[in-house]
Amino acid sequence: MERLPGFRDFYPEPLPHTDVWSADARQYIFDKWRTTAKRYGFREYDGPPLEPLELFTTKSGEEIVGQLYNFKDKGDREISLRPEMTPTLARMVAAHERNYKKPIKWFAIPQLFRYERQQKGRLREHFQFNADIIGETDPAADAELIALLIATLRSFGLTADDFVIRLSSRNAWQDFFKHGGGGHAHEYEFFQIIDKLERTPPEETEKKLAVMGFTLAQVTAFIEAGQPTAELDSILQNLAARGLKDFVKIDYKVIRGLAYYTGVVFEAFDRKGEFRAIAGGGRYNNLVKLISGGKVDLPALGFGMGDVVLLELLKARALLPKFDSPMDVYVLVEDEALRAVSLKLIHDLRAAGYAVEYPLTPSKLDKQLKRAQELKVGFTVRAESDAYVRIRNAKTRDEVVAGIADAANHLGKL
Amino acid sequence: MERLPGFRDFYPEPLPHTDVWSADARQYIFDKWRTTAKRYGFREYDGPPLEPLELFTTKSGEEIVGQLYNFKDKGDREISLRPEMTPTLARMVAAHERNYKKPIKWFAIPQLFRYERQQKGRLREHFQFNADIIGETDPAADAELIALLIATLRSFGLTADDFVIRLSSRNAWQDFFKHGGGGHAHEYEFFQIIDKLERTPPEETEKKLAVMGFTLAQVTAFIEAGQPTAELDSILQNLAARGLKDFVKIDYKVIRGLAYYTGVVFEAFDRKGEFRAIAGGGRYNNLVKLISGGKVDLPALGFGMGDVVLLELLKARALLPKFDSPMDVYVLVEDEALRAVSLKLIHDLRAAGYAVEYPLTPSKLDKQLKRAQELKVGFTVRAESDAYVRIRNAKTRDEVVAGIADAANHLGKL
Repeated sequence: MERLPGFRDFYPEPLPHTDVWSADARQYIFDKWRTTAKRYGFREYDGPPLEPLELFTTKSGEEIVGQLYNFKDKGDREISLRPEMTPTLARMVAAHERNYKKPIKWFAIPQLFRYERQQKGRLREHFQFNADIIGETDPAADAELIALLIATLRSFGLTADDFVIRLSSRNAWQDFFKHGGGGHAHEYEFFQIIDKLERTPPEETEKKLAVMGFTLAQVTAFIEAGQPTAELDSILQNLAARGLKDFVKIDYKVIRGLAYYTGVVFEAFDRKGEFRAIAGGGRYNNLVKLISGGKVDLPALGFGMGDVVLLELLKARALLPKFDSPMDVYVLVEDEALRAVSLKLIHDLRAAGYAVEYPLTPSKLDKQLKRAQELKVGFTVRAESDAYVRIRNAKTRDEVVAGIADAANHLGKL
Repeated sequence: MERLPGFRDFYPEPLPHTDVWSADARQYIFDKWRTTAKRYGFREYDGPPLEPLELFTTKSGEEIVGQLYNFKDKGDREISLRPEMTPTLARMVAAHERNYKKPIKWFAIPQLFRYERQQKGRLREHFQFNADIIGETDPAADAELIALLIATLRSFGLTADDFVIRLSSRNAWQDFFKHGGGGHAHEYEFFQIIDKLERTPPEETEKKLAVMGFTLAQVTAFIEAGQPTAELDSILQNLAARGLKDFVKIDYKVIRGLAYYTGVVFEAFDRKGEFRAIAGGGRYNNLVKLISGGKVDLPALGFGMGDVVLLELLKARALLPKFDSPMDVYVLVEDEALRAVSLKLIHDLRAAGYAVEYPLTPSKLDKQLKRAQELKVGFTVRAESDAYVRIRNAKTRDEVVAGIADAANHLGKL
């Protein structure tokens, strides 16, 4: 029986097949995400992977349904696997925001699902690091969030030579659009043109812009000038104070397709331009109000970083560590008469915090030694009697004989 | 907008409402599960939360469908959210077992889903720690798995006074049934009677047993004798050698409802009998063969431990730690002229591994001090100039003035 197309199996390393994914790499990524978020004062939350369909259509309109894993449950509810985390976050915050001091700084690592029928072979799920700040309009919050994004990527060993945050602003484009005489009715359409600028033939863009009374030359000049708004300038200065100047640049080509962004937007890209965006986010000051039906009105901003592009980038830059079997100790059972004693030894070493492996059933010593080597253990330990053990450092080959009850203490010293 | 019935929102502590769950407690439980599994030589894996429906009906029959979150996807595939992990594990092992040394020792922490229409208010999802050993028939594997189960519960501070593993065996009951003249056709039905023994009126059980040629007295005597089979005896001795005698007892009342168990079965219960089973498992030597359509035949055993009963038990025994905000340092910004310097200080402290919070926007010092207290930080740090900081240990109230670039070093010492 096969797994569903677009879904991943995660195996322990070394991987048995190119078609599967590394559970060890996944956990490595999750650990870095979690550790960095905590250092920046973000607390973890999570919601259900299934939500009422309405939660997602309220935010994104009925068009989104074509991309969802949605269905009717046995209670006749229209439900959907979550395609993104922000609507759930907005729902959760709206329900209980009074109990949390503002700004709320939260993160989550949800698995997200999209059913895109046309794109065969493409993944239909991924994991995404989501970090959000809720309840603060000041650009200091934008800077704090972007600082977390930078720190997260740096925690994997990526440097300013590897990636850059392209910083932009819906407000800057709004100003440009208004001052150029654009009508409010065309604003969203105008953002869509900017969003697709790099993927659209210039003639086509020129035509579309002309309808709204703009020229491609105007747009290009505005992008090339890259003149930061007061808000963006404040963010840049904040990041510069932290020593993060080299990780960020103004780039008005970034505007992000999603309708709900309201202010600063940004995307993280690899410097070589080999991959899709590593992360993206921005301000969405109206969403909590929308989701809560007007009951709660809180400004917010956040970013999402998927595990798939990140993993590709880390592999390409040789920044993934080796995920060898993480065993510390192999207990050799040479004499079956000492198995009971060895079991106690194994138990005690594990209780002391060591990861311990051993032959479950009688096996020849050379086979055991080979297994210890395969597992790349730091130590082998062998009961020599019911009172003494021989401990061997697998690297230095130093050996010591110790009292059996004292084995764990000696491991630390050898 | 509300979340779906039977699903949980996980919030950071302190919890804003009794109706929601603790993301911190969840992570605490996951960490213990993961850490203990690794010490016992188990490696992590995961599969998709969605699988072909057939994977679950192959194992459990068409009856299971009534309890599943199953639906047709947009590609007309019959699919289901996973109600349990074992079929996925069997599928994954069958696909790539040749690349792994036997016995395979793997664990996972999947979220599982069941749609039970009739039981309103009951959860429809939970997280489950799954640990399995594949490729070893020797009872030494059963003992190793049960030792992990015990160590996992002990890692939460639970003792032999809090829980016990009730150990039983399908083989023991098979022998009893055969020797008593039971026919093979009735065997599964007989197991069902035993499984429901404690929840069924004796008269009813007596009637059902009579049809098969047994009396309740025979069954009761067999249970009360609790005579271990050779296999169970071997497991008991193995666990006793590890010093775990007090954590396990023979109890033939345990038989487990699932059709696929083939040998030893066990359940972990709280000693006071207040809760449902904390964990349960056993041998399922035929499942890998069944799922792989006969291609791969490997003996296997495993257990599952859900997060819900475990959490209830830990709460009842006052064994959950306090999940205060995990901040180490609050950086006070008294003088806005020193904000840029403070931002660099904050950045450096975080880069050194400290969890640091600070006022995003200008605020009065007493408000900042109050916030630091609420966050229960270990230290407050305040830039006194662009060269010096004052560090204060929040507990001892010791203070030190240090060079600003040297702040992180001083934190460790104060």
